Amino acid sequence: MKTNVFGYKGHESEGSMQDFIFHISTKILFGEKTDQLAKECSSYGKRLLLVYGGESVKRAGIYDEVLEALKGLEIVEFPGIEPNPRIDSVREGIALAKKEKVDLILALGGGSVIDAAKAIAAGARCEDDPWNIVLGTCSVEEALPLGTILTLAATGSEMDAISVISNMETKEKFGWSSPNVLPKFSLLNPRYTFSVSRKMTAAGVADIMSHAMENYFSLGEENYLADRFAEGLMKTCIHYGPIALEDPKDYSARANLMWAGSWAINGLLSAGKALPWSVHALEHELSAFYDLTHGVGLAILTGPFLRHVLSEQTKAKIAQFGYNVFDLPDSGNEHRDALKAIEALEDFFECELGLPMSLEEVGIGEEDLATMAKKILLQRGAPIMGFAKLDEEDILEIYKKSLKR
Amino acid sequence: MKTNVFGYKGHESEGSMQDFIFHISTKILFGEKTDQLAKECSSYGKRLLLVYGGESVKRAGIYDEVLEALKGLEIVEFPGIEPNPRIDSVREGIALAKKEKVDLILALGGGSVIDAAKAIAAGARCEDDPWNIVLGTCSVEEALPLGTILTLAATGSEMDAISVISNMETKEKFGWSSPNVLPKFSLLNPRYTFSVSRKMTAAGVADIMSHAMENYFSLGEENYLADRFAEGLMKTCIHYGPIALEDPKDYSARANLMWAGSWAINGLLSAGKALPWSVHALEHELSAFYDLTHGVGLAILTGPFLRHVLSEQTKAKIAQFGYNVFDLPDSGNEHRDALKAIEALEDFFECELGLPMSLEEVGIGEEDLATMAKKILLQRGAPIMGFAKLDEEDILEIYKKSLKR
Repeated sequence: MKTNVFGYKGHESEGSMQDFIFHISTKILFGEKTDQLAKECSSYGKRLLLVYGGESVKRAGIYDEVLEALKGLEIVEFPGIEPNPRIDSVREGIALAKKEKVDLILALGGGSVIDAAKAIAAGARCEDDPWNIVLGTCSVEEALPLGTILTLAATGSEMDAISVISNMETKEKFGWSSPNVLPKFSLLNPRYTFSVSRKMTAAGVADIMSHAMENYFSLGEENYLADRFAEGLMKTCIHYGPIALEDPKDYSARANLMWAGSWAINGLLSAGKALPWSVHALEHELSAFYDLTHGVGLAILTGPFLRHVLSEQTKAKIAQFGYNVFDLPDSGNEHRDALKAIEALEDFFECELGLPMSLEEVGIGEEDLATMAKKILLQRGAPIMGFAKLDEEDILEIYKKSLKR
Repeated sequence: MKTNVFGYKGHESEGSMQDFIFHISTKILFGEKTDQLAKECSSYGKRLLLVYGGESVKRAGIYDEVLEALKGLEIVEFPGIEPNPRIDSVREGIALAKKEKVDLILALGGGSVIDAAKAIAAGARCEDDPWNIVLGTCSVEEALPLGTILTLAATGSEMDAISVISNMETKEKFGWSSPNVLPKFSLLNPRYTFSVSRKMTAAGVADIMSHAMENYFSLGEENYLADRFAEGLMKTCIHYGPIALEDPKDYSARANLMWAGSWAINGLLSAGKALPWSVHALEHELSAFYDLTHGVGLAILTGPFLRHVLSEQTKAKIAQFGYNVFDLPDSGNEHRDALKAIEALEDFFECELGLPMSLEEVGIGEEDLATMAKKILLQRGAPIMGFAKLDEEDILEIYKKSLKR
């Protein structure tokens, strides 16, 4: 689960903003800044490990452009990072980084590549097996410096200290974080996302919106500013998601989505809030079992989650989401308005983004649902105490409701 | 003038988000974190120059609390920074910092104290006269590390690289900036603003809103995300400003206003936008002549500025401001809606914040207006090319319209 990495502490006056630390020192180079890459890298050393995924960055010409910009530096290549990046790849990358004595890691790709690069950066400065870093049993005292070149607007990994790694043997997928793996710099060139497919663009938008929603749907704190920021960020996704699908080379759409992705999860929307995330916990279990695209899983689960937790306590916030994000009218009946808000969200995912909206559509049946629900509870050792309390039965019910729309 | 400090560059596709660099590495300690001050300071050295203003921090007990937390460090005190901080005080502070060989500067106060501390931090590592730093004729190659403890939500100086210094001899007030004076850490304890007076609370809210508006009122770029963030930030000011005036110890109000102040001017709302600010240029001239409270001057000038620049080209953005920030209805007539938006803003300043809304109310008559308008143009060497072009006549007309509401 992607957990918040900021040091929360309860505040004495209940219901008010929680104390927090915000410290995101990543230098963002936004736009046509590829020519500045070599200078940024050089300040950390001459020898870098270039971590990337498959052929897509080569087909799009991004790889050539980046290599041209890095002339004069010594580059050790480590391609082949898969979606839902695996601990085996991380182990390989660490061995290579150690053998080649690189000075820094440069990730070229989306969230999966950057998350793997974070684990490699930490593991290269640690003798323990990296799965123990993911499990949190080995603390990250130091790491190689990390730079990123983002090619997909989605996870926000380019501007946060979080990484999510999967272990296919144990069917586990966990988030971990350390301030030592926060990227030193990230190049965000919206043009590098022009070639992202319809499916991945849509899944990315759902991922960004989900990050905003995980922070937004909380109770008992007065984080007015963070909630207004979250609404603005979600409106941006709703406005530009369909435009990017329609015209993948629309610069404004790609630029706004890219920048929104970075701010959805770097602490701006969660500062002062203390609640754990819910939908991500459920989704990570799904994609650990089925290697599902993260954003697709989130889009499927969010509606059923919100309907399940809709109550006297939560209805006002869900209704507010409808008024402020989807501009729905206030009917005077919060419960009804909350249901309309959930429908508007699902309609957006389905009709505007063209995302699958049921587990069955992505080939997932009922067979593993109970096992997954049990596993979430076992791993946490306690119910999820987020927007609403979720125990094993709740989680199973949300999964079951997600089978069909 | 507070100018943007981020490296803008025009983007090839006109009308889209401009390229930029965003790099705000300040570590924010938000809430009851005074106990962490000594640790933060110690990482930069043992000997610090404590820069503060007058008796208000002593009366409020903040000074004692901070000194208690800093036990074990060697503290050289430099009190007496005035509102609209003056270059003479900066010179004194630099001499003291050099003589006492301090390792870091710790600013305890609002924007004036922090702005002065920035100039002292830079000047202590430079042989030139600090007024040349302000004028930009001497570049800031290095600076002493700076930490801040904020006691007033207003200027955002705690999380940006900008400083504004006045020269009473020459009646000049200029902004300057350098990444080297960006605070290393800032303690934002909303409780430390409980004792801020009604007048200064209201002026602070106007200052924060003005920063958001200077970024918001722009043309020709598609910075949808930044504009939605700006609207959310302004809504926060409108919601909590009156609450803080009503109950100065309302934690949520003070916390949200404090956090809003930091984000109004640190680059989040201006990233991707390239236009210079307008109202600040006009106000800095006013407060250089009259030692007026910055936020009060901004509140007086904003309405007349917006009315003056209202045109076919600008009406849509001003009307949008009314719809999205003040929840005004869309009448179908953008010009009329823009006028209503300006009225709503002025009513908020006057009726909700109790701010003076004309130059006459703050004792400023017509006598110096022409001189000031001329001086702004002389100093810039060209009209202000912001939301609308402002030459000397435009500026004088805005000043004249500001005499009475």
